[in-house]
Amino acid sequence: MTRLHDDPASFSDDALAGFLDAHAGRVVGVPGGVVRARATREGKVAVVVGGGSGHYPAFCGVVGPGYADGAVVGNVFTSPSASEAASVARAADAGAGVLLTTGNYAGDVMNFGLAVEHLRGEGHDARYLAVTDDVASAGPDEVAKRRGIAGDVTVFKCASAAAEEGLDLDGVEQAACRANDRTRSLGVAFSGCTMPGADEPLFRVPEGSMSLGLGIHGEPGVSDEDMPSAADLARQLVEGLLREAPEGADGGRVAAVLNGLGTVKYEELFVLWRTVARLLSEAGLEVVEPEVGELVTSLDMGGVSLTLMWLDEDLERWWRAPADTPAYRKGSVADLVQGSERSAADAARAAAPPPDEESGGSPQSRSLAPDVVRGAEAVAAAMADAEEELGRIDAVAGDGDHGRGMVRGTGAALDAAREAQSRGRGAGGVLRAAGGAWADRAGGTSGVLWGAALTAVGTRVGDDARPSPADVVDAVDAGMDVLLRLGGAQVGDKTMLDAIEPFRTTLRERVEAGDDLPAAWDAAATAAQEAGRATADLRPKVGRARPLAERSIGTPDAGATSFGMVVRTVTGLLRD
Amino acid sequence: MTRLHDDPASFSDDALAGFLDAHAGRVVGVPGGVVRARATREGKVAVVVGGGSGHYPAFCGVVGPGYADGAVVGNVFTSPSASEAASVARAADAGAGVLLTTGNYAGDVMNFGLAVEHLRGEGHDARYLAVTDDVASAGPDEVAKRRGIAGDVTVFKCASAAAEEGLDLDGVEQAACRANDRTRSLGVAFSGCTMPGADEPLFRVPEGSMSLGLGIHGEPGVSDEDMPSAADLARQLVEGLLREAPEGADGGRVAAVLNGLGTVKYEELFVLWRTVARLLSEAGLEVVEPEVGELVTSLDMGGVSLTLMWLDEDLERWWRAPADTPAYRKGSVADLVQGSERSAADAARAAAPPPDEESGGSPQSRSLAPDVVRGAEAVAAAMADAEEELGRIDAVAGDGDHGRGMVRGTGAALDAAREAQSRGRGAGGVLRAAGGAWADRAGGTSGVLWGAALTAVGTRVGDDARPSPADVVDAVDAGMDVLLRLGGAQVGDKTMLDAIEPFRTTLRERVEAGDDLPAAWDAAATAAQEAGRATADLRPKVGRARPLAERSIGTPDAGATSFGMVVRTVTGLLRD
Repeated sequence: MTRLHDDPASFSDDALAGFLDAHAGRVVGVPGGVVRARATREGKVAVVVGGGSGHYPAFCGVVGPGYADGAVVGNVFTSPSASEAASVARAADAGAGVLLTTGNYAGDVMNFGLAVEHLRGEGHDARYLAVTDDVASAGPDEVAKRRGIAGDVTVFKCASAAAEEGLDLDGVEQAACRANDRTRSLGVAFSGCTMPGADEPLFRVPEGSMSLGLGIHGEPGVSDEDMPSAADLARQLVEGLLREAPEGADGGRVAAVLNGLGTVKYEELFVLWRTVARLLSEAGLEVVEPEVGELVTSLDMGGVSLTLMWLDEDLERWWRAPADTPAYRKGSVADLVQGSERSAADAARAAAPPPDEESGGSPQSRSLAPDVVRGAEAVAAAMADAEEELGRIDAVAGDGDHGRGMVRGTGAALDAAREAQSRGRGAGGVLRAAGGAWADRAGGTSGVLWGAALTAVGTRVGDDARPSPADVVDAVDAGMDVLLRLGGAQVGDKTMLDAIEPFRTTLRERVEAGDDLPAAWDAAATAAQEAGRATADLRPKVGRARPLAERSIGTPDAGATSFGMVVRTVTGLLRD
Repeated sequence: MTRLHDDPASFSDDALAGFLDAHAGRVVGVPGGVVRARATREGKVAVVVGGGSGHYPAFCGVVGPGYADGAVVGNVFTSPSASEAASVARAADAGAGVLLTTGNYAGDVMNFGLAVEHLRGEGHDARYLAVTDDVASAGPDEVAKRRGIAGDVTVFKCASAAAEEGLDLDGVEQAACRANDRTRSLGVAFSGCTMPGADEPLFRVPEGSMSLGLGIHGEPGVSDEDMPSAADLARQLVEGLLREAPEGADGGRVAAVLNGLGTVKYEELFVLWRTVARLLSEAGLEVVEPEVGELVTSLDMGGVSLTLMWLDEDLERWWRAPADTPAYRKGSVADLVQGSERSAADAARAAAPPPDEESGGSPQSRSLAPDVVRGAEAVAAAMADAEEELGRIDAVAGDGDHGRGMVRGTGAALDAAREAQSRGRGAGGVLRAAGGAWADRAGGTSGVLWGAALTAVGTRVGDDARPSPADVVDAVDAGMDVLLRLGGAQVGDKTMLDAIEPFRTTLRERVEAGDDLPAAWDAAATAAQEAGRATADLRPKVGRARPLAERSIGTPDAGATSFGMVVRTVTGLLRD
């Protein structure tokens, strides 16, 4: 059980506040996360790690000399937003660029990917790497689909040490890639974790059983079996990883992390390590500076994972390199050149986005802005009505938060749209402001997709002329293109794309056939809603493990449903 | 649940083996525990900490420069034996003496106290301090009865830093006493812990409740209440400690440890710390380098404790001083002078007791040795028969292991007695060998008491003349004196003393009245057995919390019962 909290909704903020107080002098808070209290030294590449909360000491616990320059801190098990990631990266960047890196989860990939786009637009050199160490989450032919679990530790550590050595951003990125290519993890779960304030665990493992390959947020495992002895478990983990040894990695030296996921005691980990160490030695591997302890946790989940990184000379040097962070210390960092101390206020100034250079719109475009705001009002009201229904649909194969996310996102978009209109922005500026707020505040993957799409639509609409029906068609396409690039899904994968594709196709066809915009939009919205309902019969979403996703056959996709609702809501406004 | 183990009986040994492998280069194993891999530098006082296992990182996790020189490692929740404590202390001693220190528990107090006697006898300067920080375990008028919980951290750390500064043994002992005098802790439990291999937790806290003041081995708390919010719990803990602020400690600066007992997550501790920090600040206290994390655990128990040490200038310097151990690192220890590296074999040689200088006994005394061995055989056989019955009696108010402990102890005593006889020892030498083995191998408090008493009896019996009945009476008295000194109990406290006292009184009276030894012993054994049965009506044992102890009214004391059995068994042999 997770038992200690005040308002469960502010759990991760409250934990972060306590963490910053307990480790004052080592780290300072910035909007979106934490950075080192002594600034990254001028000219050193910054490494920014991150992801949702609930995994302490991942990720804020490893910020400090020799390790990360900053950590982006999301809500429990929820990706931080793109603007949070960009904020921490700005504060960490010391002029030599930033490598952002997270475990490979859809929300993190989208938000950090979007942050990299923002950062580049602002003149920061930025890269992104998603760690893919979990061999249980996809086969060797689909390595890029693997999740990141405790392999974060070896990858983040090597990238950070390479940066301390003075490598440039290309070099640091290559170090991270090499570490990731040579890192493999396999985990097991004995019991589920409980979200703060919840009465029931997020998932259950039957008492006396073990689930092999279960993910750190309860993603289903590959098999359930009786709880083995420590020695038998050691054998399963070691054999499972040795089968996956990377090609060409035959140096015989490995870094190892035996990681406890939350409620497994250190003494139990040591009992397990005793046999793991023997088996690795019998397999001819020499273990270099093993870590046995809690490094990437999952709230109060019972479980362990074993990570191996097959070393070469560089990786071994980076793995052994000193570090001094709140939760991970090794060797002496006295020789590491560090930057000057800075206050939280200084760090926050560095984290701030560049000043808003948006100019006001043309009179024609500004005259459209109130219509955009009315649209935002109508959509927010519709989502408030639909919150429960969307949550119910999403709960069949997801975590049931889609309705809540749409309400938060459309509410934030409305506030931002009103504010942008009051500052004299044109239609495009109002749409971009709404998109940015939606991406920042909705949480989850649909929020960042809606936000990025709306921002792209706003950019295409612009702030000068009143857009023609053809311009609207092009703007919808621009939004769709962003979705495809960030989301990584295809039409037919049972996602919101399945509703957007017929929407944009119909819209273009009808506009090109000479319909007026309200009529074309009406037809396109109908097509979207029909397609949304039809997702009920589609195959399960990509990236979801089968047993969970198969429950969703016969249920429409929540994202496709909400898309249909949104565009239907707008139809009425276009007629007025 | 504690789930990972191989043979539960060897859990702590297996965990220790894994720990030593994972931290090779930092620590080496010696019989009874671990010492630093780089020897304590010549002339520095050694600090040896210890206690039962199940509390990691206490105690082996804090061995290293700046912190402890060695840790004695017992079985789960069980005191190490006196000879284990002496073994580690010998390996740690660098010629300037050793401070041994543990939490204040009967078993640790007896075994470490006995170890100090052994060490002094061998020419080591040795002292012992029991930490008494837990304000919930006894009132301010009985501070010496308080348990040691996470206050171990502040006391051990300050003693260790004082030793690194070069203080002599008096100075280090005074540093530890000062830290202990100024340290207070208060803990709460949310859920019980499970012993390795057990199906059920050792104790339970009703779901949704919290037990205030519950001990780290399930010792009952002072009150049960509904689970509070983190902020309310912070208030209870802070107010509970501020009420107990040590006299004269008004400097306004405190060290603080917010300790997780096992399954409470770091994020939860940080949420709690947020309010603790604010309340301490509002109370005018400045917190110096707080520790928030798992420092003294209790297997997988759910619970937290807050420890404050009111600082003076020395304590603050010692608290801030650098340390570099497997589980606790702070600052840089580069400036600490360290001794040379040593192998496990070197460390084990240093840990070995001095060579056995026992000479063979006189022919008369040697002729008695076979009778002593026959006595040991009969007693071991009697205990094997009585194991179940003694376990049942003990389970009413204790942990039910008394029968098992007596079987282990008398079996070890028999083996040692046979071996000593085979080497030509006299009666006294055989008794001393049996006593030493009993103390080492029985486990629990009764083992060390029986062992120490038998050793004292053997010393009084000697290895020269055949003892007269008056010598036997004196020898029994010598054993009883040791029991009184080490055990800290009084006649009437419902312990084995209640059977021993009438035994020795009757034995002396009857011998002085002119009875032969068999007749006097017979009468004394009858008195002991009657007194043992009479303990059923006595008040609960001292040191036990009421609710548990009251169950034992109507049940005889297991230790008094087994004493009666042992002396009755010997009666038959004396007649032959």
